[in-house]
Amino acid sequence: MKFLAQRRQILGQTLKNGKDGLDALLITGVPNVTYLTGFTGDSSYFVATSTNAVLVSDPRFEVQIQDECPAFGKEPGLDLHIRPHNKTTLEATIEVLTQAGATTVGVEANRLTVAELEGLRELAPKLTFVPQTNLVESQRTVKDPSEVEHIRTAIRVAERAFKMFVATVREADTEKDMVDALDGYIRRAGANGAAFPLIVAAGERGALPHAPPTRKPLAEASKLLVDWGADLLYKSDITRTIRNPYVVTPTARNKFERVGFDFERVYKTVLKAQNAAMDEIRSGARAKDVDAAARKVLAEADLEKYFTHGLGHGIGLEIHEAPRVRANSEDVLEAGMVITIEPGVYIPGWGGVRIEDDILVTRDGCTLLTTLPRDLSAPG
Amino acid sequence: MKFLAQRRQILGQTLKNGKDGLDALLITGVPNVTYLTGFTGDSSYFVATSTNAVLVSDPRFEVQIQDECPAFGKEPGLDLHIRPHNKTTLEATIEVLTQAGATTVGVEANRLTVAELEGLRELAPKLTFVPQTNLVESQRTVKDPSEVEHIRTAIRVAERAFKMFVATVREADTEKDMVDALDGYIRRAGANGAAFPLIVAAGERGALPHAPPTRKPLAEASKLLVDWGADLLYKSDITRTIRNPYVVTPTARNKFERVGFDFERVYKTVLKAQNAAMDEIRSGARAKDVDAAARKVLAEADLEKYFTHGLGHGIGLEIHEAPRVRANSEDVLEAGMVITIEPGVYIPGWGGVRIEDDILVTRDGCTLLTTLPRDLSAPG
Repeated sequence: MKFLAQRRQILGQTLKNGKDGLDALLITGVPNVTYLTGFTGDSSYFVATSTNAVLVSDPRFEVQIQDECPAFGKEPGLDLHIRPHNKTTLEATIEVLTQAGATTVGVEANRLTVAELEGLRELAPKLTFVPQTNLVESQRTVKDPSEVEHIRTAIRVAERAFKMFVATVREADTEKDMVDALDGYIRRAGANGAAFPLIVAAGERGALPHAPPTRKPLAEASKLLVDWGADLLYKSDITRTIRNPYVVTPTARNKFERVGFDFERVYKTVLKAQNAAMDEIRSGARAKDVDAAARKVLAEADLEKYFTHGLGHGIGLEIHEAPRVRANSEDVLEAGMVITIEPGVYIPGWGGVRIEDDILVTRDGCTLLTTLPRDLSAPG
Repeated sequence: MKFLAQRRQILGQTLKNGKDGLDALLITGVPNVTYLTGFTGDSSYFVATSTNAVLVSDPRFEVQIQDECPAFGKEPGLDLHIRPHNKTTLEATIEVLTQAGATTVGVEANRLTVAELEGLRELAPKLTFVPQTNLVESQRTVKDPSEVEHIRTAIRVAERAFKMFVATVREADTEKDMVDALDGYIRRAGANGAAFPLIVAAGERGALPHAPPTRKPLAEASKLLVDWGADLLYKSDITRTIRNPYVVTPTARNKFERVGFDFERVYKTVLKAQNAAMDEIRSGARAKDVDAAARKVLAEADLEKYFTHGLGHGIGLEIHEAPRVRANSEDVLEAGMVITIEPGVYIPGWGGVRIEDDILVTRDGCTLLTTLPRDLSAPG
């Protein structure tokens, strides 16, 4: 609760500072509403005026709101407005803003569609709506201790699920079977579900960074690329590329190895690239320099042309959030940010290697939050 | 393929008609891009000019695009533009528009955020971007025969999963266990996954229309509300409220029945409301009248005050799409629309009953696409 009040207070500074003459803020992005209220449902908005904070929702969520953020509607300065079924949430929001005497309202440029802003202006021609960028997202990039703990939990759950997965896969399983099984293990380990559509790419299909699962069986693959994460409100996001874990002898495994590139050499180069990137991370480092550090290692091994995406991204309430860690990013890292570092090499016809870990930026460096081994010895 | 070309042709009419002086259209909404191209990945845009159609994507999706929409980049008039990793998709899109000599570009007001539109205008000050409403969504409300088949398949898969679920639940299962199991069965039955976060509400928790799963065990509930659907690109969306299926004798079940309302009476009233709504459905009917027909039946039984949401919504590539079937909707039904009809009654402390089916609007009435029994006799 302490952190929630702090977050609303920091947001309130935008009003106190008198920026753009704003006397109210309308927060419509689902993760932003969650961040400010603790409410995890959707279709609900958060309104901040100079005196009050209001959660605008609908009757479907009344009980859930009592469970998740009981202070709204009870404590001074925290109001709850439940719309009837025959009004839209935007209409109800206008009522709240009008009752509060607001005239100039900051809205979320990154969350509101062009049509929604148009709708607000038609509904309330007397109010002025001023699009603002990253009102809440800028706060969210630096995690408070409670958030880091939530992310750690999402990582532990994902790691436990991965161990269940590796322990139970069998040769007859197809990519689809494996995705389904891993999704079930993520739930079994305690998550609400997977943090995103999971990727299990067998053999040369690892060359597709976002491979949708096929009916290709594990039996026909020498290696397996698995990209998975758990959703416990906060998300985790990990990738491991492992040798086919069910095959007992290297001879059997090598039958399906594609020629042209040596798996161990490629793997070690990607791992070296990941380590080089981590060496660059500290408060004040430019995200583009971290990306460049990984790319340099791959270039030295003539593999950089196969690294076709950015190096990483922030994680938290969303699976992709600020900062962006890539060549064209202007973001600067700060202590308390949690980011993925995920170099990859994708060779058409041969396969791919990606290693992805979740990392907390600290003042002088970084802390690796993931605990699964990153070398080829384990698991599998 | 025939349908894809047809859809692009219908969209092209917007340009031919000379509306707002547009000479190009930029489609950014993921389901809209899928609808026009067959490509099922994200982060990709579709550009239509008077002569060409272009899919703008990134290297992660090259192989998937070859699989799913091989015509792009090969057939005349269908181009493929893959951006490098150090450019954004919006930057690549501007290049495509400029090369095509476009000057006035229609964009999707319902899909583009305020910030994205601002970004486009900054990147390309010489181009004029004109927000358009429902460029593709208006086409998508009326399904072509291939889409109705896709939805039917998503319904069949969901129904098979429900039978697995009812056959296997046991008294020790909590709501969370049941949600996880049903999710697994939906995948096992052939879906990519669940169409939305599933709802399994035991006993009085059925009073929460969007109940997040708790650790409440099935053993302590006389009734079970289950809202589920399958995602096979197209979605299905069904709700059944059943008596606790594991209890053998009515005596055991009634131990947990909450007093105040008779389950069978409430159930039959909700079913009657659903039937009354279906009787109103035909091409030309107003969505609000269909909603009113259900509400009238509930009002006659003094239950209307417990029906706190709209009656239904379109389904297709998205789980909620046009038309909206509710009191404040201005939508008119047309043959070929596929909608849910889902009256519900939610009584705090007692529980809830919702019955939801997927329905194809026809010229003279409607076709019930769901085949699971709607009466209380089965399953369970």
